[in-house]
Amino acid sequence: MNDLLLRALRREAVDRPPVWMMRQAGRYLPEYRAVRAKSDFLTMCRTPELAVEVTLQPIDLVGVDAAIIFSDILVVPEAMGMHLTLDEGVGPQFSSPIRSRADLTRLTPVEPREQLAYMLDALRMARRALNGRVPLIGFAGAPWTLAAYMVEGKGTKQFAVAKKMLFEQPALAHALLDQLATAVGDFLVAQVEAGAQVVQLFESWAGALGPEEFRTFALPYLAKAAQRAREAGVPVIVFAPGGGWALSEIAAATHADAIGVDWHTTPQEARRLTDPFRVALQGNLDPCTLYAPVEEIRRRTHTMIEAFGPVGHVANLGHGILPDMKPDHARAFIDAVKEWQWTDERLAAAHGTAAPAGPQLAGVP
Amino acid sequence: MNDLLLRALRREAVDRPPVWMMRQAGRYLPEYRAVRAKSDFLTMCRTPELAVEVTLQPIDLVGVDAAIIFSDILVVPEAMGMHLTLDEGVGPQFSSPIRSRADLTRLTPVEPREQLAYMLDALRMARRALNGRVPLIGFAGAPWTLAAYMVEGKGTKQFAVAKKMLFEQPALAHALLDQLATAVGDFLVAQVEAGAQVVQLFESWAGALGPEEFRTFALPYLAKAAQRAREAGVPVIVFAPGGGWALSEIAAATHADAIGVDWHTTPQEARRLTDPFRVALQGNLDPCTLYAPVEEIRRRTHTMIEAFGPVGHVANLGHGILPDMKPDHARAFIDAVKEWQWTDERLAAAHGTAAPAGPQLAGVP
Repeated sequence: MNDLLLRALRREAVDRPPVWMMRQAGRYLPEYRAVRAKSDFLTMCRTPELAVEVTLQPIDLVGVDAAIIFSDILVVPEAMGMHLTLDEGVGPQFSSPIRSRADLTRLTPVEPREQLAYMLDALRMARRALNGRVPLIGFAGAPWTLAAYMVEGKGTKQFAVAKKMLFEQPALAHALLDQLATAVGDFLVAQVEAGAQVVQLFESWAGALGPEEFRTFALPYLAKAAQRAREAGVPVIVFAPGGGWALSEIAAATHADAIGVDWHTTPQEARRLTDPFRVALQGNLDPCTLYAPVEEIRRRTHTMIEAFGPVGHVANLGHGILPDMKPDHARAFIDAVKEWQWTDERLAAAHGTAAPAGPQLAGVP
Repeated sequence: MNDLLLRALRREAVDRPPVWMMRQAGRYLPEYRAVRAKSDFLTMCRTPELAVEVTLQPIDLVGVDAAIIFSDILVVPEAMGMHLTLDEGVGPQFSSPIRSRADLTRLTPVEPREQLAYMLDALRMARRALNGRVPLIGFAGAPWTLAAYMVEGKGTKQFAVAKKMLFEQPALAHALLDQLATAVGDFLVAQVEAGAQVVQLFESWAGALGPEEFRTFALPYLAKAAQRAREAGVPVIVFAPGGGWALSEIAAATHADAIGVDWHTTPQEARRLTDPFRVALQGNLDPCTLYAPVEEIRRRTHTMIEAFGPVGHVANLGHGILPDMKPDHARAFIDAVKEWQWTDERLAAAHGTAAPAGPQLAGVP
């Protein structure tokens, strides 16, 4: 069994970092597009057999060290009774966005084992199909990010409608966010019970908020959901792209085992901000690097690994892989991580600049 | 004559910061919409009488301390021969984007006094009409930002096509960027000659690049254009939203008189990053704050002014004002700045945490 991911998340010694890619079960793979050609995205999410098929594809096809269940963060608002459509070229849309207290009362509490049973089934089937080859990651959207979509009704550049609610009707926003934090926490616990060995919270729209709003409307609810998931007994990863400045606050508030780092923040800066919290870091190659020639991908991947240092690093992209990227180039990234070895020379070179070693050295600055 | 902006940019002592707003000549004003109802956006840019009319509106209507000439950053690619359209709801588009060396050869050198004469005329007319009431700001898009639009063909979330060129065809990207840096520099010099008393460079898509690409493809060309403009003898402001981490590098490379700060970065962090460069800062209230009640706008504006400190601050939003914002709320922001006074008590409180005082104290850390 390849448990490299679990060991890296516990900050144990590893010869090389584990590696996976956000959106690894995605359109860059012809094998994914073949499945997608026969059914739409939401049908794939809701059909465990199809979800499991594409979840497993990148294990064989590109050789990643973890599977992440194929799904979408917007299944939670949908489970609360919102009508979700996902049209090609338009993106996800809710026909009746949340704008008032009355809209809020339309939302139903989430019982994951009922409304989201299809995703829990997919996790159970994927876990069986993986048969210990690599760990299985579950996930959910974080409360602010889900609220942003639910209030806006769709993805936008600035989420100005959702932000308007924070400034104009803060009590309404807090009520929505609290309801979401409960739903997301329950959902993650149910995912762990269904077989997820790691869970990741996606605060995809962290970057839409300035520091004061992030601390008021995002962080407390992200922390509530993350802490609930931690109690279920598996490592929790929090990824808040666009929130590089907040890495230390996220680590402090969520007690996450790992924090995702987007490609705006250098590994060195991410370590500087999070070192006191003894948290693992995940990331952060700019996905657009996969447009570069293979040798350049390899060079940059190695530079990144070296910069994160030997303890508590999960290699990943700093954002999802894009649909027009070449599978060969994705493999070049994965292979570059797999050929890396933390040799004695490299460990000696990292000593002094790298993060402190695993739990046995607790207390060492 | 209200020369508060010029004094703040020189880091001279002022009783209160000057204030203006990005997109202050814009759709939030009914008086702007009345002009816009009669002609499309690009016609307004190309008709000096109309451009001057809307440039002057916010001086009387909201009471800002500076006028910024009404125009668009994409007039430069258009002057190079690209066909620009700007449709309602779609945004700016170029029908034949730059993707190859052959596309690059289609671009013509820019002679601002010819292709961009209409904007220089507008500056001359605006300067006359202002008659010294407030200073007049000219502007241009920075090379990377213009290149991103020219390669992509339109605005997108990630500018993945433009980034692809940086990774796949770096030499082509450098050739385009260098040509743009020359054009932008020449244009800014011509603007100063036509009456601009300050110029601002907009690196609007700084946030699309990670640190390595920003340093390679954005910063050198931004610096080239900014330094050229500085030689024309007026203060230069550089605004690179999404590039908060790069504030010190931008200050060091561009020698700008002022750096714009977006709303992701706290004033304290912006000062920490730029203090060694003795540069003024401009910003940075989150425009969405203008959705809040008037008393809250006032409170946050004062908190922001206090945090930037008494020396070298130009109050502004951290991004453009949005079309659906209320003029009353814009005025509340402007009024809150105008009622601020750096009293002796406040100066004493700021002492020790604020930036060092003006040029007479050069050398004090």
